[in-house]
Amino acid sequence: MVHNFNAGPSILPYEVLQQASEALLNFNNTGLSILEIGHRTPVFEGVLNEAVSLVKELMQLDSEHEVLFLHGGASTQFMQVPMNLLEEGKTAAYIDNGIWGSKAIKEARLFGNVEVVASSKDKNHTYIQKEFTVPADALYLHYTTNNTVEGTQWHSIPETNVPLIADMSSDILSRQLDFNRFSLIYAGAQKNVGIAGVNLLVVNKNALGKVSRKLPTIMDYRSHIDNGSMLNTPPVFAIYVSMLTLRWIKKMGGVTGIEKLNNEKAELFYSTLDSLPLFKGLVAKEDRSKMNAVFIMENPDLEKQFLDVCKRENLYGIKGHRSVGGFRASFYNALPVSSVQVLVQVMKDFGTQFG
Amino acid sequence: MVHNFNAGPSILPYEVLQQASEALLNFNNTGLSILEIGHRTPVFEGVLNEAVSLVKELMQLDSEHEVLFLHGGASTQFMQVPMNLLEEGKTAAYIDNGIWGSKAIKEARLFGNVEVVASSKDKNHTYIQKEFTVPADALYLHYTTNNTVEGTQWHSIPETNVPLIADMSSDILSRQLDFNRFSLIYAGAQKNVGIAGVNLLVVNKNALGKVSRKLPTIMDYRSHIDNGSMLNTPPVFAIYVSMLTLRWIKKMGGVTGIEKLNNEKAELFYSTLDSLPLFKGLVAKEDRSKMNAVFIMENPDLEKQFLDVCKRENLYGIKGHRSVGGFRASFYNALPVSSVQVLVQVMKDFGTQFG
Repeated sequence: MVHNFNAGPSILPYEVLQQASEALLNFNNTGLSILEIGHRTPVFEGVLNEAVSLVKELMQLDSEHEVLFLHGGASTQFMQVPMNLLEEGKTAAYIDNGIWGSKAIKEARLFGNVEVVASSKDKNHTYIQKEFTVPADALYLHYTTNNTVEGTQWHSIPETNVPLIADMSSDILSRQLDFNRFSLIYAGAQKNVGIAGVNLLVVNKNALGKVSRKLPTIMDYRSHIDNGSMLNTPPVFAIYVSMLTLRWIKKMGGVTGIEKLNNEKAELFYSTLDSLPLFKGLVAKEDRSKMNAVFIMENPDLEKQFLDVCKRENLYGIKGHRSVGGFRASFYNALPVSSVQVLVQVMKDFGTQFG
Repeated sequence: MVHNFNAGPSILPYEVLQQASEALLNFNNTGLSILEIGHRTPVFEGVLNEAVSLVKELMQLDSEHEVLFLHGGASTQFMQVPMNLLEEGKTAAYIDNGIWGSKAIKEARLFGNVEVVASSKDKNHTYIQKEFTVPADALYLHYTTNNTVEGTQWHSIPETNVPLIADMSSDILSRQLDFNRFSLIYAGAQKNVGIAGVNLLVVNKNALGKVSRKLPTIMDYRSHIDNGSMLNTPPVFAIYVSMLTLRWIKKMGGVTGIEKLNNEKAELFYSTLDSLPLFKGLVAKEDRSKMNAVFIMENPDLEKQFLDVCKRENLYGIKGHRSVGGFRASFYNALPVSSVQVLVQVMKDFGTQFG
């Protein structure tokens, strides 16, 4: 039994893997693999339509919001968002809460003015800077809802009067939010809604068409909306896995059901962390991520030993990100509570032995 | 038994599907699915490195040529190529041999001057216009080696003194070519080297870094070369399937072995086509594609009946592209000769019955 705490690509529900594995040999009794079917066939159109409908239903989207599945990951969106929405010479507001936000800022500067309205860089991004003022003429405010590397998370939607754009790559569909408040949401699918190779986007169509630059067809969100995510050959298999994962989320009680389990996992982990003097959380308690827990030990020798124990107990992906060190445990949607129970027991036992 | 003549996404070797299906549940005895492993792990780095090595070996690339696996399909490259290589105010030469070439031309015009040096539009792209003059100051010449929709193919490399760029989406690794003559080759993988969701690129690194525009990081080929296709989370599973398919090509005798089979299939099909008065090829004989055969019947009622017969005989994907009509049969690498044998027998029987 393996416990997969990988930060991404990461754990998927086992029933999704089983169905995908079967579909690789015979999809829907077509006698063909899901990898061998044309994208402009009723059988794949059914997959795509179901994926889109499930996102709309699970996120309770209104009719202004369109759902897209596009090639690539969030790194593509760092460029595509300002290309579509930031007029040259105008200003966009960005919040710098970590490595991914910084990358988004770097790309946006190629297209217009960027004002960094809040930053947590002064403390190594170990907290969320929630106090800020957005210039009234900013075209939008961009932020990262969950910081995979640093282990922080926004627990409410920032208050602002300008259109809101969020990179939700690492916590999309992990909790209830008023998703209709966003002009644009994007997420690489490989953490909570599928595999690497596809972006899930939610776009308020009224936000589009306002920049004067000429957009390459493949970069223009409007082309993709007009063509229902079939402007070109889409990443068929990645969309199929997302569809299966979305079905699973619905079966688990939708976003409410998933959020309850995610809260349970986070509560179990962080209460254990706080009870063991050997381990130390790195981020402000109120900003702790329910998706990615980042923690260390004061003694580097013990860190090495703890990783060995994790390996022996089949706890995968516990090593921290190379830029932070220490440990990181990711608790995405598909991670069962039982895996967190094993992790906290291993931590407790280690604490008893060395504490 | 199903015979898959789909134009793309299309048939894959059955052993590739079997291995991929197994890896979806337990990849390399890791206890994890290939969909759940981190991309920065030795186990995935091994997959990517092997895929890159196999491309270099199969295409006999010299040390100036780099191999990349990038998100998206050829439609992304229509924009990314001129963004990287066409300086504003300068000229690139393009050959317009069909729908995909036209799309590439449209996107290139956003970045600089485009001179269409040859076009087969006068005859509905039913032949290859091989006579042309490239302006001496053109930064490159772009063409499509095989036209999936129209069923034509370049059977030799165009002669030119300027750097050569090719969209090889539908015939890459299907035949021997001097691949080192190209400054850049790109191909959506979903026809001959894998599944939708990844581009295979071969880039002469000396061709890069010559435009003055600021490139978004994710669009800059140099960023991807510097990071070995791991600038961001790559499409892990799509690269894995490409690696398996490349292994299979090598096992089949490499490009030489594959080309022999592809020639056999094309010869068998076209000789049958020419022997049956009921059917009619649409393109100039000397420019016929060995990957996609486009053909019609004069009588639309019979066309419908022929499609019914194909359906009954489990011949999939024979219906022509919506812009051309009639029939199309695709003979990509993974299609066995035996499937073409079944198709030509069905055509002969139909000819006997209705001819």
